[in-house]
Amino acid sequence: MAIACEERVHALRGQLVRQGLSGFIVPHADEYQNEYLPACAERLAWLTGFTGSAGTAVVLSEQAAIFVDGRYTLQVRSQVDVQVWSARHLIEEPVPSWLSAVLRPGDKLGYDPWLHTPQEVRQLKEACSKAGAALLPCEPNPIDALWDSRPAPPAAKVVPHEIVYTGTSSEDKRYKLSRQLKNENIGVAVLTAPDSIAWLFNIRGGDVEHTPLPLGFALLYQDGTASLFLDTNKVTAVLKPHLGPAVRIQSVTELPDTLEQLGKAGERVLCDPNRTASWIPERLARFGALVIEGDDPCLLPKACKNVVEINGAREAHRRDGAAVCEFLAWLSREARTGQLSERDTQSYLDDCRRRQPLWKDMSFPTISAAGPNGAIVHYRADEEQCRRLEPGTVYLVDSGGQYLDGTTDITRTIAIGSSTPEHRDRYTRVLKGHIALAMATFPKGTTGAQLDTVARRPLWEVGLDYDHGTGHGVGSYLGVHEGPQRISKGGQTVALQPGMILSNEPGYYKSGEYGIRLENLVVVIPATTDRGDGREWFAFETITLVPFDASLIDETLLNATEKDWLNAYHARVWAVIGPLVDSSTAAWLERATERMP
Amino acid sequence: MAIACEERVHALRGQLVRQGLSGFIVPHADEYQNEYLPACAERLAWLTGFTGSAGTAVVLSEQAAIFVDGRYTLQVRSQVDVQVWSARHLIEEPVPSWLSAVLRPGDKLGYDPWLHTPQEVRQLKEACSKAGAALLPCEPNPIDALWDSRPAPPAAKVVPHEIVYTGTSSEDKRYKLSRQLKNENIGVAVLTAPDSIAWLFNIRGGDVEHTPLPLGFALLYQDGTASLFLDTNKVTAVLKPHLGPAVRIQSVTELPDTLEQLGKAGERVLCDPNRTASWIPERLARFGALVIEGDDPCLLPKACKNVVEINGAREAHRRDGAAVCEFLAWLSREARTGQLSERDTQSYLDDCRRRQPLWKDMSFPTISAAGPNGAIVHYRADEEQCRRLEPGTVYLVDSGGQYLDGTTDITRTIAIGSSTPEHRDRYTRVLKGHIALAMATFPKGTTGAQLDTVARRPLWEVGLDYDHGTGHGVGSYLGVHEGPQRISKGGQTVALQPGMILSNEPGYYKSGEYGIRLENLVVVIPATTDRGDGREWFAFETITLVPFDASLIDETLLNATEKDWLNAYHARVWAVIGPLVDSSTAAWLERATERMP
Repeated sequence: MAIACEERVHALRGQLVRQGLSGFIVPHADEYQNEYLPACAERLAWLTGFTGSAGTAVVLSEQAAIFVDGRYTLQVRSQVDVQVWSARHLIEEPVPSWLSAVLRPGDKLGYDPWLHTPQEVRQLKEACSKAGAALLPCEPNPIDALWDSRPAPPAAKVVPHEIVYTGTSSEDKRYKLSRQLKNENIGVAVLTAPDSIAWLFNIRGGDVEHTPLPLGFALLYQDGTASLFLDTNKVTAVLKPHLGPAVRIQSVTELPDTLEQLGKAGERVLCDPNRTASWIPERLARFGALVIEGDDPCLLPKACKNVVEINGAREAHRRDGAAVCEFLAWLSREARTGQLSERDTQSYLDDCRRRQPLWKDMSFPTISAAGPNGAIVHYRADEEQCRRLEPGTVYLVDSGGQYLDGTTDITRTIAIGSSTPEHRDRYTRVLKGHIALAMATFPKGTTGAQLDTVARRPLWEVGLDYDHGTGHGVGSYLGVHEGPQRISKGGQTVALQPGMILSNEPGYYKSGEYGIRLENLVVVIPATTDRGDGREWFAFETITLVPFDASLIDETLLNATEKDWLNAYHARVWAVIGPLVDSSTAAWLERATERMP
Repeated sequence: MAIACEERVHALRGQLVRQGLSGFIVPHADEYQNEYLPACAERLAWLTGFTGSAGTAVVLSEQAAIFVDGRYTLQVRSQVDVQVWSARHLIEEPVPSWLSAVLRPGDKLGYDPWLHTPQEVRQLKEACSKAGAALLPCEPNPIDALWDSRPAPPAAKVVPHEIVYTGTSSEDKRYKLSRQLKNENIGVAVLTAPDSIAWLFNIRGGDVEHTPLPLGFALLYQDGTASLFLDTNKVTAVLKPHLGPAVRIQSVTELPDTLEQLGKAGERVLCDPNRTASWIPERLARFGALVIEGDDPCLLPKACKNVVEINGAREAHRRDGAAVCEFLAWLSREARTGQLSERDTQSYLDDCRRRQPLWKDMSFPTISAAGPNGAIVHYRADEEQCRRLEPGTVYLVDSGGQYLDGTTDITRTIAIGSSTPEHRDRYTRVLKGHIALAMATFPKGTTGAQLDTVARRPLWEVGLDYDHGTGHGVGSYLGVHEGPQRISKGGQTVALQPGMILSNEPGYYKSGEYGIRLENLVVVIPATTDRGDGREWFAFETITLVPFDASLIDETLLNATEKDWLNAYHARVWAVIGPLVDSSTAAWLERATERMP
């Protein structure tokens, strides 16, 4: 791969010279600004070899850099040719800061306007201007001319997602949003986020792996009608009756003309400056539209699940809990041989899930990581690195299922045979953080950034931390990563609201030795501490139901409140999951959920 | 006051009609964008009667609204005529949101470009544009024509602040910053924040109450030279030799021309979009300068105190601690009579401080609040509201001193006679939050927003909270409120760094009954948890030295770690302050710092 990679960078540099550019920026993005890319949009992987879910490369004439976050600092060094690429930390050294330091006056940096949001373009422009350089849109993307066997865009059929799972009809959703547009004096909202489109129209697709996204674009008008732009190959006969007469299904090729017409009509058009490709507002503005910047109006209502979606999530977690318990019971029997490989355990776990009713897919490729591989946060067992689960190590497994009624995501860390005092100390601190977050009560208006520290404190006390967020939003049979809710160190301005589903997943990683992560999903609910003084208080309900490995808990580090929480949780797991599993799993589960004294 | 107020709003409306405006916005701001205003800039107080330190009024033809934050929700209702003004919550309903809801298409909202930052102007513009209204600069401010006896601008003498207190010469500071400007390809930085100017030139002034600020403007050039624009009446003979030949002292009337020349020379000029009056970058840009937006370059180096400043702060806190202990010992003897008034105690405390060496001023008007007045966060005892300290109530006293070697700020809450179980529960929860923050260890990169929740959790657990930040930055013989460091619910992106001084002041307020606040100052220091793994860890050193009222502590709510902290703190207070006070104070202090079992 290294040689091929070097050739690709070389070819790209040649292409840039021909186009009069000094450099080009290659984000991990497609024209939908979505985390999960179809193969045809994996330009970053094609160019660099890096296959993580987030990152950006910049190729200049003399140097090339790839920026990844803390989850990928190990992975990137193993995947890219470090002779060609300097690997940098996306958060500690943001791309714009680096650009303003390395670009020279007169440099011309190219970007693909379909792959960057207006907000990103502004930041890049400012960075270039600081250095006296210019930022120029490049269309088509110069990589596409070099990429010989670039896959065709996906064209999976778009199917209705039934009201029994969504709880609210598309018509109701559109009516509510259109009222909002009217109040804000907006004529049309542009929607480009595939999960927003899936949510608004109650449809699902299959254009990317593991997430049932229909890639396309939509316009929602002030009168509640809408246009849905799709590759015509994706449209099935059932779609039109499902969507009804107020939704026009159009070919995606008609989008540019439609935007031009909106412009010429002088429409007031809402675009999300953080989620829309800059190509779209630029085209609208060029033809005379008044582009109004604001959040994608589907974001918040999609994130705040209704009663049907929350009940669906609870149901999905029962089935998912049964599947994971079946796997853990098997693991407790088989692991002692020391012969199981990461791929053996992954395939057993995946099979347990596949047998569950309403299962459609994994939420993401199962992370089955033995010993030191557990310290690679988004590890994926491949042939080269696949390890056996050896006695005396800890095994980390992060996995999830896409069920018609909900999306799951769970991580457990398991001692294979005996564990060391250090393993138990770190595991218990991670667990203390997990429990503190699970028990948090907080007033209306609190953001995830305010709660993040609660989960880190038991580690911080001894000078330890983890280099990823504590929690991400989760969709309803949609993205296993979903915004705007998030629990992490900074930048969140969206308050947590009832119905939001998030992960609670503190961890600890010792590079080259082991990784620990404990993840449950939680839903934001009204708190019982409400004092009736007009202030609203919220709390979390944990919906994941799988025991924690008691053999990794140092009980002396837990206080009475933490033990009470753990005992109550395990009692609930036993009560709910016990009746759903076979007798040998039940026997294991009964022991695994035993009361801690 | 109510009638006068109504007349003023009426007169302003008449003025607006003559200028063709539908409304006008009146912030609590002056042309230096500084929290502490000279009397001539108190337009908000003149118009509304509200005297708090933050707020904004908007006068429209049919309605008038005043926006204040949680500290002032009670005060504003007692000060403004509620027939004329609707009082609103600045944070929950920001002015721009309100404007876009109430403005009508075609409305013209005026603003004074000297009183708003470019960032504020952008937000207001966007809000107006959403409503189809326009935002128009108004110069001069229409209030000034109506304000008959408007005070003259202050002209206190500007004096050098000696190197024995500053630790670094102005020349060194300017050299360091000028290198930074050069690296960022910036020709000139505009400085308008009075505390930045005071810090950079090692000067102090007396233009506002309680904070030794010299109001003026400055330009710092890439070559390390500077221009300081001052009212010529402020310039003393010692100033020129102190500043040296590289600093040109100019009259403030020369600023507009100088900006024009910078523009005509096409200079690249740094302006802080959050701290500079929009008039300045607008003028620069109009004449051709390239305005580069970025933080005031003095902000961070001013906030990160050097060794001399930190030692000065420690010294100032010893003297201040002795003064406050002398006061508390007196209070413990005198309060039992029930005859002391808030003003009696305030004046006794102020006198204790005045006697201390290097004392120059109070940091702010002492808050001496008995019983229900304690729930008014920025209470100031006036003739009408002044209460006696009655047995069975709690008394809150928040005060500080400006010493040549440091600025102090401390709050204690004291039981007058017996207290109730509720008082003790709330006091202890506030103390638990205070201790948790004081003991926090955190990695490099952590912001105050991440730590804020640590102090709130003991209250949140039972559905209680406080409606103000947990900590603000504090200057060195400068502002008792200083940025960019802050510990509060949101929005902070600046990481805490060694040398920053902050307050640690959680509280609890029960409107109409009592208020509790416990405030010490802390300085950020390297933590002992550093594991030598290349990651830096920080902690707080508490520098305020005054005991907490043990009679308000419910010991059953404290865990062993919290008791250990409290005992160690009290032992330190006794060891350091004991030798500094008279014998009757020492006798009280010995009892007040007794070890808790």
